[in-house]
Amino acid sequence: MVEKVIHAIQDEYPDDFAHCFGCGRLNEKGYKFRTGWAGERTKTIYTPHSEHMAIPGFVYGGFIASFIDCHGTGSAALALHRENGHEPGDGIDPPRFVTASLNVSFMKPTPQGQPLVAYGKIEKVHPKKWLIHTEVYAGDKCTVKGEVAAVVMPDTFKA
Amino acid sequence: MVEKVIHAIQDEYPDDFAHCFGCGRLNEKGYKFRTGWAGERTKTIYTPHSEHMAIPGFVYGGFIASFIDCHGTGSAALALHRENGHEPGDGIDPPRFVTASLNVSFMKPTPQGQPLVAYGKIEKVHPKKWLIHTEVYAGDKCTVKGEVAAVVMPDTFKA
Repeated sequence: MVEKVIHAIQDEYPDDFAHCFGCGRLNEKGYKFRTGWAGERTKTIYTPHSEHMAIPGFVYGGFIASFIDCHGTGSAALALHRENGHEPGDGIDPPRFVTASLNVSFMKPTPQGQPLVAYGKIEKVHPKKWLIHTEVYAGDKCTVKGEVAAVVMPDTFKA
Repeated sequence: MVEKVIHAIQDEYPDDFAHCFGCGRLNEKGYKFRTGWAGERTKTIYTPHSEHMAIPGFVYGGFIASFIDCHGTGSAALALHRENGHEPGDGIDPPRFVTASLNVSFMKPTPQGQPLVAYGKIEKVHPKKWLIHTEVYAGDKCTVKGEVAAVVMPDTFKA
């Protein structure tokens, strides 16, 4: 059985911010990525569908970029929420982040047909800007590394 | 009416390499991105679906990363194909590239409900490695910039 993230930050986003194609629990066609704490690191787990291929047998890089993207903003939200004294599940709305930049290095082909696990290491560079250094594993192989600069959602995104 | 790329490199990929979730013409659930020449630059056009949102009204960054990714590998294939004396439509199989790295800068929110156009400027850094510098436009606004390092598909991807 595939391991599951128990307390995911995306479960706590207010409904208005829960429509993201990558990680929105209310987006019926999206991936519904879920990110939680794993010790001092963060973790997102997902098994790509058969159509998410680059060529048969290998996962599409654009999918992995999306995985790293939402893992990054979710990790930043977890970190700032914890800094504010909160954890997912305690009933308090977490902060919501957007991606300022996304860098992905594809080190080796990522095989299909198994869960991918993203682990994030968080670095605070400013109260409103966090870097998330991510490694994506397929089984025991790290195939992709990524870095997300996540910033607290600016007012230009709000109605 | 939305402008369309006429001679796209993805129309020419051999069937075995036409299953990519981003740009494979044979992937029924994928985006089917299509990339062609526009003078000395390359161009990919796509209108994101309503579900490809970050929050309502704005396009999901992971989608845009995918768009830049396949635009990049397609652009590199166009460039090497031209260097080899060929153009899409002349019946010769083009080379196939994979992404070594993908860097995306989200400069401003990208509005939904209109075609996005990616323009690529190509830089050859090695016979087998090309950089594609991309700007993504929504209407007359460049909202995202990206860079793809594309390399000729290595044997590790082949059966």
